[in-house]
Amino acid sequence: MKHFFKVKTVEEVLAVISSFQALGVEDVPLVEARARVLAEPATSGEDIPQFDRSTMDGFAVRAKDTFGATEGLPALFNVIGEVQMGTRTGLETGPGQTARVWTGGMIPKGADSVVMVEHARPVDERTVELAKAVAPYDNVIRVGEDVRKGQTLLPAGHRLRAQDVGLLAALGHNSLRAYKIPRVAIISTGDEIVPTETKPKIGQVRDINSYSLGAQVEDVHATPVYLGLIKDNLEELKQAVGKGLEQADSVILSGGSSVGVRDYTVDTFTSFPGSEILVHGVSVSPGKPTILAKLGNKSLWGLPGHAVSAMITFDLFLRPLLETLSGEIKEKPRFGSRLPAVLSRNVPSVHGREDYIRVRIQLEPDGRITAHPVLGKSGLISTMVKADGLVRIGLNEEGLVEGSEVTVLLF
Amino acid sequence: MKHFFKVKTVEEVLAVISSFQALGVEDVPLVEARARVLAEPATSGEDIPQFDRSTMDGFAVRAKDTFGATEGLPALFNVIGEVQMGTRTGLETGPGQTARVWTGGMIPKGADSVVMVEHARPVDERTVELAKAVAPYDNVIRVGEDVRKGQTLLPAGHRLRAQDVGLLAALGHNSLRAYKIPRVAIISTGDEIVPTETKPKIGQVRDINSYSLGAQVEDVHATPVYLGLIKDNLEELKQAVGKGLEQADSVILSGGSSVGVRDYTVDTFTSFPGSEILVHGVSVSPGKPTILAKLGNKSLWGLPGHAVSAMITFDLFLRPLLETLSGEIKEKPRFGSRLPAVLSRNVPSVHGREDYIRVRIQLEPDGRITAHPVLGKSGLISTMVKADGLVRIGLNEEGLVEGSEVTVLLF
Repeated sequence: MKHFFKVKTVEEVLAVISSFQALGVEDVPLVEARARVLAEPATSGEDIPQFDRSTMDGFAVRAKDTFGATEGLPALFNVIGEVQMGTRTGLETGPGQTARVWTGGMIPKGADSVVMVEHARPVDERTVELAKAVAPYDNVIRVGEDVRKGQTLLPAGHRLRAQDVGLLAALGHNSLRAYKIPRVAIISTGDEIVPTETKPKIGQVRDINSYSLGAQVEDVHATPVYLGLIKDNLEELKQAVGKGLEQADSVILSGGSSVGVRDYTVDTFTSFPGSEILVHGVSVSPGKPTILAKLGNKSLWGLPGHAVSAMITFDLFLRPLLETLSGEIKEKPRFGSRLPAVLSRNVPSVHGREDYIRVRIQLEPDGRITAHPVLGKSGLISTMVKADGLVRIGLNEEGLVEGSEVTVLLF
Repeated sequence: MKHFFKVKTVEEVLAVISSFQALGVEDVPLVEARARVLAEPATSGEDIPQFDRSTMDGFAVRAKDTFGATEGLPALFNVIGEVQMGTRTGLETGPGQTARVWTGGMIPKGADSVVMVEHARPVDERTVELAKAVAPYDNVIRVGEDVRKGQTLLPAGHRLRAQDVGLLAALGHNSLRAYKIPRVAIISTGDEIVPTETKPKIGQVRDINSYSLGAQVEDVHATPVYLGLIKDNLEELKQAVGKGLEQADSVILSGGSSVGVRDYTVDTFTSFPGSEILVHGVSVSPGKPTILAKLGNKSLWGLPGHAVSAMITFDLFLRPLLETLSGEIKEKPRFGSRLPAVLSRNVPSVHGREDYIRVRIQLEPDGRITAHPVLGKSGLISTMVKADGLVRIGLNEEGLVEGSEVTVLLF
């Protein structure tokens, strides 16, 4: 009556899981790219931007012509024209000359910086006073400053966040090569289980696991295939699992924690030629009676019938399996969406303004988590790609000093 | 030339946002319930389970008949039959009697507990030795122990996690009343912007914001409606925004941080009768040129054209707006998926087994975060509903003591 398990540790089961292969790849339109996993690194075929761009409305100048200019002693410039948006400008500014430029517009030849419109006072049609000195490249995004030609910003195996999708748009990827989305067939078993829409009689309970497991499958960006409720009957189980193998990459059979049903589960799985039982019991609570069989690159799971056990087992084992099938390579530990960290350097801020700085987080050898400001203008999508989250500097703060405890709002 | 803003603080903008109303409600099938927001509280019409259930394979007994039973001195029981799964059992056990019962089976009248099969030694067809004493209700889930009749476990406004979907299944909800999913129309503008599939000429850049904003809309479980790229032309903008108002609950016009385009944005928004500009500039960086107009319960947004600014502004303002439209009422602060906390009480564990305990987290008045173990058997879906996450007790730990620093793996 007693059943002997070759019980594995969680770590051993995870080692077994890592032997599965990522699924095939397919073309995915960019508007469906979110949460998909890149099958190829995203490399830029060009500099972004391909021309020096203004980040402000204002006047393009040679910075050194503004040196010394102040509100009290503005510099006088000759306005040679206005940069048209969206075209290569033919304008060239000489010494003492300027051209009107809008945000996103091209910087004319001869200019290297932009004085914001707020510091400009028109004198007449052809003349403007600029009341502020700028340094070279102030208010300018330079060629390749966002992304350099040939640069790889996203490796294969990366799951795409919103900013990554934006980057792919910037690179001109109207579609992309991504790993296929794993499909997971879900079967509930148990003679005492009735469908949700049924009013259970005494002795019966409703099917929970089909729905909680299905939602968990969606949580990890995979697709559930609901195969319903099957009686504890070897032939019906074999038929349902066979259907699951046709339609999905993994099959979960949940229910029947009893020894008898576990035997049915094993008998069902081993009835498929080429299948092999890899796990039969795990040293974990809840989740001990977990069964895993492999058939090629497909996996067959016997999960406990208890609702909690099934969910925890899913989280422990199916989640990493589905990440593996998805081709996902986690570059960082999975942090939460708010993370306490220590700031790595001073960050200035202006009183009376709430600032959000982009930061990259890093786990230091001593266990501390540090937040490294990612510097760069707010037109640079690459800074968001490099960053892991934001740190808020409050309205009434003058900035944050190195070593401050901050909360990172993770993407 | 200078434009005067009535600049608002982030807090003021959030107050404006909170004046919007949740969208209407609709029926949603349970298999599509994940991440939907409940429009009505989920209340149980019955006790779950409706009968005392075994959580183990074993023998149903009256606990006091086992008192004193040990491996060395087992108690002898008369086996009166086996409980059939899925039906009300007619068996009644008297003193010194037992019935075979499987996991999930009904406890016969007269019995109050189950001795696990591991501690049973059959003597003959009608007799079994039970080598372990049990207390009343050991290995039994009692009537209503998961959910009591009339109990409300999920309030209206709750966004459904996997375990919540499981609970709804247990309650017999084959479909549910949920708030409608907000639709967000996305328009990019700017004469220098070209579609992603186009190779930009010098002076042009590709449209990023349509894609990053669209993915952010999906991040918050809303539906993007892509209306494409519109030239900086008042009539075309009005037409696109009009289309957005027909097809969506919110319209985002991103691009053109320049003063001229901002004027176009305001002119476009105010051209719709009944519209009102509520926000025109925010004291935040990035994100200052944000514009918000209201038209009934629909919102029109002018977001900065800079990719980073647009994303941060979305996160700051559109995310809470879309939560409001979704009917979501956050019961707890948004924590990340791994949270350091202090354990509120001792938790025992068995050496050589990795344990996962369910915990509810609580922010204490002194700022500490405590993790409160949610006790209950692993067949109780309600414990998962009440819990916020799991705490792992390692293979080689004997348990955790009150006051330990733990990491909560949040759901």
